[in-house]
Amino acid sequence: MEQTSYWLWYPGDFERYHALKQNFSRVERGFGWPAFWKSEGFRQRVVFRRGYTLTEDTSFTVRAVTGAVGYVLLDEQKYPIGKEISCPAGTHSLAVHVGCIGCVPSIYVQGACIRSDGGWKVGDFDGEPVFAAYNRYFTDPARDPSAWAYTEKLYLPVSVEAVNGGTLYEFETELTAALEVKGEGLPTVYLGESRAEALDTKNCYFFCSPDAETRRCPRQALRYAFLPGCEPGAYAVRAIHQYVDIPVRARFASDDGELNRIFTVAAHTFSLCSGVFLLDGIKRDKWIWGGDAWQSLFVNRYLTADRELEKRTLLALSPGEPVTTHVNTILDYSLIWLLSIETYFESYADEELVRMLWPRMKSLTALCMSQRDEYGFIVGRKKDWVFIDWADFDRDGPLCAEQMLLAEALRVMARFAPASERGLYEDARRALLKQIEAFFWDGEKGAYIDSFRSGKRRVTRHANIFAILFDIADDRRGRLLADTVLFNDEIPAITTPYFRFFELEALCRLGYLDEVLAQIKAYWGGMLRLGAVTFWEEYDGAKPLEQQYEMYGDPYGKSLCHAWAASPIYLLSRWFVGLRPQSPGGEEYELRPQTRFFRSLDCSFPMGGKLLHIRLENGQWNVEETQIMGYSSPCAGR
Amino acid sequence: MEQTSYWLWYPGDFERYHALKQNFSRVERGFGWPAFWKSEGFRQRVVFRRGYTLTEDTSFTVRAVTGAVGYVLLDEQKYPIGKEISCPAGTHSLAVHVGCIGCVPSIYVQGACIRSDGGWKVGDFDGEPVFAAYNRYFTDPARDPSAWAYTEKLYLPVSVEAVNGGTLYEFETELTAALEVKGEGLPTVYLGESRAEALDTKNCYFFCSPDAETRRCPRQALRYAFLPGCEPGAYAVRAIHQYVDIPVRARFASDDGELNRIFTVAAHTFSLCSGVFLLDGIKRDKWIWGGDAWQSLFVNRYLTADRELEKRTLLALSPGEPVTTHVNTILDYSLIWLLSIETYFESYADEELVRMLWPRMKSLTALCMSQRDEYGFIVGRKKDWVFIDWADFDRDGPLCAEQMLLAEALRVMARFAPASERGLYEDARRALLKQIEAFFWDGEKGAYIDSFRSGKRRVTRHANIFAILFDIADDRRGRLLADTVLFNDEIPAITTPYFRFFELEALCRLGYLDEVLAQIKAYWGGMLRLGAVTFWEEYDGAKPLEQQYEMYGDPYGKSLCHAWAASPIYLLSRWFVGLRPQSPGGEEYELRPQTRFFRSLDCSFPMGGKLLHIRLENGQWNVEETQIMGYSSPCAGR
Repeated sequence: MEQTSYWLWYPGDFERYHALKQNFSRVERGFGWPAFWKSEGFRQRVVFRRGYTLTEDTSFTVRAVTGAVGYVLLDEQKYPIGKEISCPAGTHSLAVHVGCIGCVPSIYVQGACIRSDGGWKVGDFDGEPVFAAYNRYFTDPARDPSAWAYTEKLYLPVSVEAVNGGTLYEFETELTAALEVKGEGLPTVYLGESRAEALDTKNCYFFCSPDAETRRCPRQALRYAFLPGCEPGAYAVRAIHQYVDIPVRARFASDDGELNRIFTVAAHTFSLCSGVFLLDGIKRDKWIWGGDAWQSLFVNRYLTADRELEKRTLLALSPGEPVTTHVNTILDYSLIWLLSIETYFESYADEELVRMLWPRMKSLTALCMSQRDEYGFIVGRKKDWVFIDWADFDRDGPLCAEQMLLAEALRVMARFAPASERGLYEDARRALLKQIEAFFWDGEKGAYIDSFRSGKRRVTRHANIFAILFDIADDRRGRLLADTVLFNDEIPAITTPYFRFFELEALCRLGYLDEVLAQIKAYWGGMLRLGAVTFWEEYDGAKPLEQQYEMYGDPYGKSLCHAWAASPIYLLSRWFVGLRPQSPGGEEYELRPQTRFFRSLDCSFPMGGKLLHIRLENGQWNVEETQIMGYSSPCAGR
Repeated sequence: MEQTSYWLWYPGDFERYHALKQNFSRVERGFGWPAFWKSEGFRQRVVFRRGYTLTEDTSFTVRAVTGAVGYVLLDEQKYPIGKEISCPAGTHSLAVHVGCIGCVPSIYVQGACIRSDGGWKVGDFDGEPVFAAYNRYFTDPARDPSAWAYTEKLYLPVSVEAVNGGTLYEFETELTAALEVKGEGLPTVYLGESRAEALDTKNCYFFCSPDAETRRCPRQALRYAFLPGCEPGAYAVRAIHQYVDIPVRARFASDDGELNRIFTVAAHTFSLCSGVFLLDGIKRDKWIWGGDAWQSLFVNRYLTADRELEKRTLLALSPGEPVTTHVNTILDYSLIWLLSIETYFESYADEELVRMLWPRMKSLTALCMSQRDEYGFIVGRKKDWVFIDWADFDRDGPLCAEQMLLAEALRVMARFAPASERGLYEDARRALLKQIEAFFWDGEKGAYIDSFRSGKRRVTRHANIFAILFDIADDRRGRLLADTVLFNDEIPAITTPYFRFFELEALCRLGYLDEVLAQIKAYWGGMLRLGAVTFWEEYDGAKPLEQQYEMYGDPYGKSLCHAWAASPIYLLSRWFVGLRPQSPGGEEYELRPQTRFFRSLDCSFPMGGKLLHIRLENGQWNVEETQIMGYSSPCAGR
């Protein structure tokens, strides 16, 4: 009768606690850089409860997370935490009271009949008790949720080189690793995503010394490590890669070797950026950004279909009550968070998470609606960041792209709203679309303008791309926008890979797959030709390798392992292999392979809890479905 | 140019963090007992800012609280925390970014010109930046606000006795002390507020072992310590009393030795219960209760006039947004918290704190108003505790005493409301008073009934006492209530010292000072006659000493050092010496000594920032005022 016990916590609080840890984990050149937005706490006092009817005498032990105080209440009797408690046969009510200031209050119960699993409820002395949450990573009584229990893998250097009077260690790929340095004393080690960065002891992002006892440096992103003033052999250096074990389920093998390599490197890049949460990059920022996360949901649907990773991320981004600030302070990221919930729902049909988030979705939407001006357009407050993209918008007055995001968010809200509230969102969306058409559509230019107040009537790509993605432009107008905007060289090009994703998606929607494929090969193929082993935050094909590391005015500012650079996984899967869910959760799916691009194909994708094995050989298409084991396991948590 | 630097934090967050620590500090018989109400967090990410114009070059060092991450931003340049930073003459903007999960993010800046003091602002990435808060206890860079820096005083045992095969150590009074036990091994020590408790190794509340290195046990309430199985001399035992240094300013010496002794023991009791916050007791619960705290405000006004202690307590009790639960879960304590703010304001005229709390006062009042039934009466929800007192009320339907508290809270709200909102509260109060009169006043009985729904028309003292205290009964009716209720032996007596305070106050209001004095001498004098060195949570004159320790069904459940037992300080000062503030803050005051009770008097009380030295000798009254040094010091914080 050996069954698993799980660490239990109040739903969402684990994510809020670990999101704080994640967003406070950025370190650069010796100082910490906690994320610059309102940071919400977690419940510090909860009580877990469960009733048992036992046919025999039993015993159990309750553990609590490091730093917690509390007690066990079995029927009317109090017991300390941490000691074995006997419980006779019969009907019993069990409660575990816990308070913890420094981390999420959580418990672990071990026993033959009484254990911590999905049957427990948890209360916070406010709302009705809810089912306690847990996950598959926290089943070991000795590893409590105060720190993430990373999986470790040892990497030896693939090259050790005497250079600049010191020794440079190179690993086969970028890692998030604790460098182990054995030898005399506690030398300072300089780390780099690139060889150039590690050797530049003045400007590299990370330097560290091993701990005297463990000989380990703190976990950091690295591919190169440089020890100045020592010869190869003076130290034994290894990297202990620390990662969250999320199996990659997708495989892509076509007759086009370059595409295969792009897919593989994209998958590797994305896996490195998939930790406790969907991160932007592993060197920088290591923050949970709503915009980046939304794009990652599209990739992850095809790559790992790990629902828990996405759920943790959406919970980490969810605003706390009262909702007074925007996700990451960014107005558009609040709207994008609402869209993300639909993207997640399309992948997994998880009604429970939507139900859990609904009150916050409503509050956040209410905040957004409260920021509408006299025309009904959403505008930023002084403390809000109206981002959309790094681009030269006409920012005088409401931005068209924000209105399109709001319209799309209202569609999502109407979709998930109870029937009685749906009309409100639908009406608001209809009215907004009318105003967008009246104020932002320029019939002469055949395009949406950025802003109307200045009278400049400037056109950029962004709003026009959103118009296509969100079906604000109908088919006819979408085709028009391809000419007037997307293929119009006079409209400034998108410069960020973040918005390039939306542009490529719009091109795919309009059927320009040849153009998209060419761009994939030029941009991602270009990085491969420069020797990239992970895909970068940004790439400019016109520059030589040594000029690629600079960004944001910092010589090594560019992240060389960045999640949004993994978008070929989505583009190839969705538009070229032609696979997409047709019902929420993907139990029904559509497969429309673009046969003209492939002579042979042998690939696998997760969809609706199954693994689809898709093959093309000698002009024959073949699809096999196999159930993914453990896909809907009880470990999924509530 | 040596000036003080202070640890800085976001106003209120220090109190929220330490309130969590306080409310989670209760320990009984080996298990922790965190308080059972919704426990709110603190801001985990803040930024401190200040501009400087320097006439000369300088340097400074920034420290952050244990566990914090962050950086210093001087103009455009980032620096790590903890290192000396040079700053040339000229105009500079300085920011310190800090994130901290486990405790209140706070900083300390040390330098000749640049230092952390009252000129800094702090922001939370949400509201407008506000002036950073600080206090006089945290000026040492080596003692950060993660733990309270207690003042220590060494106590040696006044008696060491061989008993029950072990050794019993007695101290001259009850202490909150870390017991130091030097000698062989790490023996288990049993502590007691009473000799009986310490010797009862099975049932005593606290047992502990010294830490191997420091030889100290955790800080606990104790007067007696018992080491079983050892002879006197086997161990060197001392108590290190750890307390918050709050000077007692009052002194009371009359020709009545018993009264003097009552005042002294009450002052000692109250001081022991005045720590970081105004606590109920030092052995139990060590929680911050709104009802107990309100009563303590009346005592503290006369005893220490330490505004900061009261402010910390009011902030610790303040509900977090969104306000969905009641103070300590108790409906009446929410209303009492509102009344407490007025009591505090009467003592110190601190408009700034009222301004800071006003949004929460409004939210809490709104919650209370939302709980009114069809008659306009406030009723508890399922999760609320409708307390009033441990008494046999007719609890069917709305309770009269709650309505009276609500009416009084509405008066307070109207008093502090901006002119535009005042009418709302006044109207609500008027309507409520009308309903109280219609539904709860029983003209035949000449008393307010508990509840009207059951038809029982039961009369208890509580609502009638509130009617007198809150001027709901006019003078004529007040005198009537004395006969029909207060001096009517058929109405069940008040059994708790908590409500006895309100009853004595009502009697004083009605002028029954002789009766009150007799009660003081019987009740508090009775405890003294049983050898009390601190006043107890409760006392029954009919029982012998050995039966006094039981309460709540627990053989040592009674707290022997309990704040609410210090009320003679207030009663004697306010009603017998006859001193009270006449303007908020007490700059104007009334002194109407009840001469018939004293032949001589020599006492001091703080009032309006001055110390009043009041003497009666040979029928002559004399009052001298001296300024209290440091009373309005900058250490007061904002």
